[in-house]
Amino acid sequence: MKSSTTTVTHSGGTYPIHIGSELLSDHALIQSLVKGQQVFTLTDENIAKHYLPALNSALTRYQHNQLILPPGETFKTLSTFENILNELATHHHHRDTTLIALGGGVIGDITGFSAACYMRGVNFIQIPTTLLSQVDASVGGKTAVNHPMGKNLIGAYHNPQAVIIDIKTLETLPDREYRAGFAEIIKAALIHDPLFFEWIERNIEQLLVRDNDSVLYAIKKACEIKCHFVQRDEKEQKYRMHLNLGHTFGHAIEQQLAFTWHHGEAVAYGIVLAATLSETMCDLPKKETDRIKCLFKKLSLLKKLPKNSDLAGLTTAMQSDKKIRQNQLNLILLSKIGQSIITNRTPIDLIQSVWKNLDNTID
Amino acid sequence: MKSSTTTVTHSGGTYPIHIGSELLSDHALIQSLVKGQQVFTLTDENIAKHYLPALNSALTRYQHNQLILPPGETFKTLSTFENILNELATHHHHRDTTLIALGGGVIGDITGFSAACYMRGVNFIQIPTTLLSQVDASVGGKTAVNHPMGKNLIGAYHNPQAVIIDIKTLETLPDREYRAGFAEIIKAALIHDPLFFEWIERNIEQLLVRDNDSVLYAIKKACEIKCHFVQRDEKEQKYRMHLNLGHTFGHAIEQQLAFTWHHGEAVAYGIVLAATLSETMCDLPKKETDRIKCLFKKLSLLKKLPKNSDLAGLTTAMQSDKKIRQNQLNLILLSKIGQSIITNRTPIDLIQSVWKNLDNTID
Repeated sequence: MKSSTTTVTHSGGTYPIHIGSELLSDHALIQSLVKGQQVFTLTDENIAKHYLPALNSALTRYQHNQLILPPGETFKTLSTFENILNELATHHHHRDTTLIALGGGVIGDITGFSAACYMRGVNFIQIPTTLLSQVDASVGGKTAVNHPMGKNLIGAYHNPQAVIIDIKTLETLPDREYRAGFAEIIKAALIHDPLFFEWIERNIEQLLVRDNDSVLYAIKKACEIKCHFVQRDEKEQKYRMHLNLGHTFGHAIEQQLAFTWHHGEAVAYGIVLAATLSETMCDLPKKETDRIKCLFKKLSLLKKLPKNSDLAGLTTAMQSDKKIRQNQLNLILLSKIGQSIITNRTPIDLIQSVWKNLDNTID
Repeated sequence: MKSSTTTVTHSGGTYPIHIGSELLSDHALIQSLVKGQQVFTLTDENIAKHYLPALNSALTRYQHNQLILPPGETFKTLSTFENILNELATHHHHRDTTLIALGGGVIGDITGFSAACYMRGVNFIQIPTTLLSQVDASVGGKTAVNHPMGKNLIGAYHNPQAVIIDIKTLETLPDREYRAGFAEIIKAALIHDPLFFEWIERNIEQLLVRDNDSVLYAIKKACEIKCHFVQRDEKEQKYRMHLNLGHTFGHAIEQQLAFTWHHGEAVAYGIVLAATLSETMCDLPKKETDRIKCLFKKLSLLKKLPKNSDLAGLTTAMQSDKKIRQNQLNLILLSKIGQSIITNRTPIDLIQSVWKNLDNTID
């Protein structure tokens, strides 16, 4: 069993990200990460079926309560948050309890936000089971629930005690979800590491067939890049914004399409839009945009928006982006592959005209 | 106009507590503390009547939205929190907005929690208008809403950008509320400063008639003592627990009596219970308990519990206290006036027998 550990440093301390295969069967590892005598696990029906038994058998010695949600982003709400707090209070969980998020990004975000707010902050462990959450939610301490007016509009920064990435859990991940995870991996390469982008280009076939070693390398690399940004700017004052490449557009799309697109698909679309804007705004060569498109295409990540999409609605949704400061929309663009810039100078009508034509360039 | 500034240092930076009279009329001061172009004020009907006009005229140059709650602890809920987030989202408040809490502890706690969670944390300014909130909520960054299973069960640590204590706002504070504020001031003296306790004993008459200089001194002193504890232990790992003298009992009482007792009255009762327990547990001389009782009596803060109070219910409520670690209830007791200790060795049946007899010692 290959495994490795990456350490994340934040203002309140450090935590390990354990990356390997069959880590969920490693009872000693899991028990070493639980500090008190109480555990509360949040998961969803799909994940529970496959992986909750393994976790349960690792946790027989603890008071272990759990809540199993129906799958999906629609449950990432204040109302679910309230249910979790009710469960914790009803079962008398104390401040030294440990919450465990067993699932994808939705489960991780709600669990993290609940852990941030229950008794003003309790321990939690992330066990991300989707590629997307393994490379994205593991690092950075962002937790949230959605608000009807915007995704992740309500949340907190709250770091886990540990992250356990068991790539064995990817075996049951549907293909569409697996591929969507690469939107964040490619984003990491695009903003910071041209060599990693080239590595992905060269290894895309092994990645598509889920070759263990390639997947482990890609996850570790993406986590390390995220670490680089987060450690320099925990609370997203500025530097961390680079990680939002494609996300301002992506969030607007997800919201307008009522979350029928996968987050990774929306982000991939957003990245291609950002790259196309970058051709005008910061001289990104068109062939670089084409390389990005080509990679997303191999991953079947690049889709046209539904016909008759409400472009005005998309632009409005974009205006409630959390990265707005002094009424200026901050966008992340690419000066080249491996290097991003933050700018608030992109005219809204340029965005609209590029956006209007983008679908014609996607086949 | 006399005024002074105390600086609070926390892991994320520092903030000033401005203490003085008629600070609400100081437009330059207020404007200097608002960083962006948007402000959202939370207040209650009683306070709005007297002080919102002054704040409004200081803030004409900003987008200024507000929510005015009915007064009372019953509105310190997740549901109110959700209303506030709805207002912020509906009026497109960005991450550089400033929330202002104009009111007592309830307003401060909800505003602070909303500021902690909206877009994962925005600026907020505390303008506490009750004596209790001026000496207690100003320092320490604790924010929260109540849960049916426990007071302040849901919350976050989130420090304000500034605190403005305008003792002019005490002029409209009902007498019962004014007196209740002294529970926290006396608590501060009891856990840390015997000379300040003696000062309060000597100056109780001036304090009761709200003599400006005496009130300013008492507030400043209480804030400084709280600062001492909070700066050494921001997240209540241990040292900060001293500030909870009387609160484990106090919270249980408030909850069992459905918040018909004022927080200060419940805390005063809890402090007397803790002092009486301290006679057995750590040799506090009975005459010290009597001094404490005498002071609370002068303030009309010491009340008997309603006849037929459910002592078993109170003990159960106490068990869900947030200070429980490893299933042990941590209590704050007094070894002498001016010095508290933390112990988890107090037997529950001792607490029950002392509690059972306590009302007989109150006249």
